[in-house]
Amino acid sequence: MELLQEKILKDGRIEGNDILKVDNFLNHQLDIAFLNEMGKEFKNRFKDEKIDKILTIEASGIAIASIASQHFGNVPVVFAKKVESKNLDKEVYETKVYSFTKGKEYSVKVSKRYLNEGENILVLDDFLANGRAAIGLKDLVDQAGANLVGVGIAIEKGFQEGRELLLSKGIRLESLAILDSIENGVIKFR
Amino acid sequence: MELLQEKILKDGRIEGNDILKVDNFLNHQLDIAFLNEMGKEFKNRFKDEKIDKILTIEASGIAIASIASQHFGNVPVVFAKKVESKNLDKEVYETKVYSFTKGKEYSVKVSKRYLNEGENILVLDDFLANGRAAIGLKDLVDQAGANLVGVGIAIEKGFQEGRELLLSKGIRLESLAILDSIENGVIKFR
Repeated sequence: MELLQEKILKDGRIEGNDILKVDNFLNHQLDIAFLNEMGKEFKNRFKDEKIDKILTIEASGIAIASIASQHFGNVPVVFAKKVESKNLDKEVYETKVYSFTKGKEYSVKVSKRYLNEGENILVLDDFLANGRAAIGLKDLVDQAGANLVGVGIAIEKGFQEGRELLLSKGIRLESLAILDSIENGVIKFR
Repeated sequence: MELLQEKILKDGRIEGNDILKVDNFLNHQLDIAFLNEMGKEFKNRFKDEKIDKILTIEASGIAIASIASQHFGNVPVVFAKKVESKNLDKEVYETKVYSFTKGKEYSVKVSKRYLNEGENILVLDDFLANGRAAIGLKDLVDQAGANLVGVGIAIEKGFQEGRELLLSKGIRLESLAILDSIENGVIKFR
């Protein structure tokens, strides 16, 4: 997606050789008009598929998924929860995800009410790096007996193993921008 | 907001005498068309005000604020972060909020890049109960030298002290639905 590449070059900030910060439009401050452009492109990528529901993970995925839903006929959005919440149902699908950023494993949960057998689920998220979060969401979809139509990602770190992992499990992956490298302050796209 | 009262009666679930669960449309599964109705109503309530930015708090506020922004000319949305994040800037405004639900105090942070002196800020969130989160967000706005135009809430628990606390600090409060009581499985609205 040309527009996203331009946005990354204009507004992204690089730290070291592997961190791209896009917190001024994607995961702290949100550019809503731009999220709509991304939502339109996700719809375009998955236009031949029937999507019943969009699944994402808190917190950064919520805005992307909510805005994108409008381009999929306002299908329900469900966001998986990472943190303990007193108000979450007892009956949940649960999986473990290892976070390299945080150096620890955490639980990801969805109430059984909101993922149902036979539903066609599109997973959307902001970043794909090592792919562990996406695999965790696939596990929740599988537990529910639902059908994972594909995974849509805003920014893929093409120099990490996420793509390989997802494709090895037969998952359709659509990334709006793929970074080939971030070296010496220079971003190269695939 | 009549429509929200009806939605609560139709889709809300009551637990005990003080918990209203709206996780099938507002804070776990999201009804995007309905969030747009709420966004329209927030705009209606604050139609005479100039709003430069919407501030909310992760995670449940993100969808409400993002969808609402579309009714305020796509103003930027900033969500305050509750959890430690390696990727958050070092330069942040920070405040402490006591959570009665979790029985502990937590930090709430916003990067200094995304709240600026003189900006007119509208705070939006899903629930108002004791008002501590809203006061925390006001503190962040104050630290930045920005101007808090008001606080917009989807569902206010009118039987808790949030309203009194916010009004005592001169904050304009607009709640789309106010619960007067939840007793014996019956919801009464103000």
